[in-house]
Amino acid sequence: MEYKTNIEAALKTAAGLLEDALTDALGERYTGNTAVAEAMRYSALGGGKRIRAFLVLAFCRLFGGETKAALPFACALECVHAYSLIHDDLPCMDDDDLRRGKPSCHIAFGEAEALLAGDALLTYAFECAASNACVSAESVRLAVKTLAAEAGPRGMVGGQTLDMAAEMKDYDELKTMIDGKTSALIRASCLLGYYAATDEADPTVIERITAYANAVGLGFQIHDDILDVTSSTETLGKAVGSDEKNGKKTALAFMTLDEARQTEAGLVRDAREAVAGFAGSDTLADLALWLSRRNK
Amino acid sequence: MEYKTNIEAALKTAAGLLEDALTDALGERYTGNTAVAEAMRYSALGGGKRIRAFLVLAFCRLFGGETKAALPFACALECVHAYSLIHDDLPCMDDDDLRRGKPSCHIAFGEAEALLAGDALLTYAFECAASNACVSAESVRLAVKTLAAEAGPRGMVGGQTLDMAAEMKDYDELKTMIDGKTSALIRASCLLGYYAATDEADPTVIERITAYANAVGLGFQIHDDILDVTSSTETLGKAVGSDEKNGKKTALAFMTLDEARQTEAGLVRDAREAVAGFAGSDTLADLALWLSRRNK
Repeated sequence: MEYKTNIEAALKTAAGLLEDALTDALGERYTGNTAVAEAMRYSALGGGKRIRAFLVLAFCRLFGGETKAALPFACALECVHAYSLIHDDLPCMDDDDLRRGKPSCHIAFGEAEALLAGDALLTYAFECAASNACVSAESVRLAVKTLAAEAGPRGMVGGQTLDMAAEMKDYDELKTMIDGKTSALIRASCLLGYYAATDEADPTVIERITAYANAVGLGFQIHDDILDVTSSTETLGKAVGSDEKNGKKTALAFMTLDEARQTEAGLVRDAREAVAGFAGSDTLADLALWLSRRNK
Repeated sequence: MEYKTNIEAALKTAAGLLEDALTDALGERYTGNTAVAEAMRYSALGGGKRIRAFLVLAFCRLFGGETKAALPFACALECVHAYSLIHDDLPCMDDDDLRRGKPSCHIAFGEAEALLAGDALLTYAFECAASNACVSAESVRLAVKTLAAEAGPRGMVGGQTLDMAAEMKDYDELKTMIDGKTSALIRASCLLGYYAATDEADPTVIERITAYANAVGLGFQIHDDILDVTSSTETLGKAVGSDEKNGKKTALAFMTLDEARQTEAGLVRDAREAVAGFAGSDTLADLALWLSRRNK
């Protein structure tokens, strides 16, 4: 398959826009100069692929919205993502010392400050979303409700509790866990992009956006599982083999490496088909493909 | 001073309304049946004075709103409060084994589930607020923005990081910490009650509500500090002397017990004066007085 757009350039542009907006949003003016504010900036700024922000911006544009209306929602998504990584890395969870090639938040700031920095980022995400001055109050209402539902007990946190508790007896159980742990925030990103462009929630449109997000999310996690056994610590910026170390079941517990790659290819096709009917969706189609080819 | 209303009965009624609404909101239908959902219910239901919920309901009624419009916001406040207690009790924070007379969340469910239950309650608070079907989208926008600001890095979490970091060289520094740690959620409660009744944010009204909340919040914390040295574990439902055990500076580091009681009496007067101009504010005036007389 060939890219139809310059996806690398588009990702870089979106990441730059997000970094500027988030640097401003997390500045002392808005978050203070306490230890927790420092820890928030340490973990949320200057790293990551910013896939969630990219999705917010891309879906906003797809439905005719402006970038400035999407950025506060994109900041909200990246704050939620950063909080989830900080709490995931804590000793009582995955106990990871390394994140994006630098010490995890609790290594750099101590456990209590890391806990609070995660709490603060999660809370601040909703302040970013509710402070979006370029959209209607109804758009804010839809965005907050969606973000909270996808990040909460039936969404991301629900997936994390399944990840810890479950024996994962088959691939279906694993998919349920991934649907929460990974796909939920991807869904929120895509939908918040849509709500940045409009405050009319068309069920047909939402269904197609959701299908795209679910395929991208599951594919993303399977690709991470593949990288965890095939990549190097240097390339990943975190310890390889950490899933096995933590006794986590991954897709590779239920299929061979080759089957995992085939499954992922199928999900890329699903994602591309889900948005094929929307004019101007080439960037989103290319993103799904690009994610399946990334090496970290 | 004498009560003008039956404040005990009013508190009991509000607590009952909140308990019913929160029991429904935290039911399996909305939060699932995972371990984290169980832990959420364990910590958020069946306990506490529900002062924050009372304030939401009372301020909503004061400005002509209906109880059903206030309840989703009241649930949101109690979820945020419950999350803050779970995370406060964690080993890396205050390391308290007892809360409201029963094992803390991490003792009952383990540290990882307690961390996630706190995260889930904080997230779910915003879902409750955004799902309020009895108010306008603008009211939701105001409520979410206020709740996030008061609970976040410049609010409650900011106060907690000061509490951990600071040497507390004087009473002013202590007051800054309390303004975040305790008063911020009290302010959010009062203001969300107002926004449940109207989506017009009148700066003069907000100023008076804020003055009431600040006096109640500081008085509340000073009263807690007094109880921590004068009450018993049995009455409090948690260990007495825990502030000293944790090396926490309290108001009693800067004044005698008698001075603390006088300071608190002054704050009760301030609170009562702040709402004296609002017709129908007797319940709120009585609450300030009642809080200064509670024994737990």
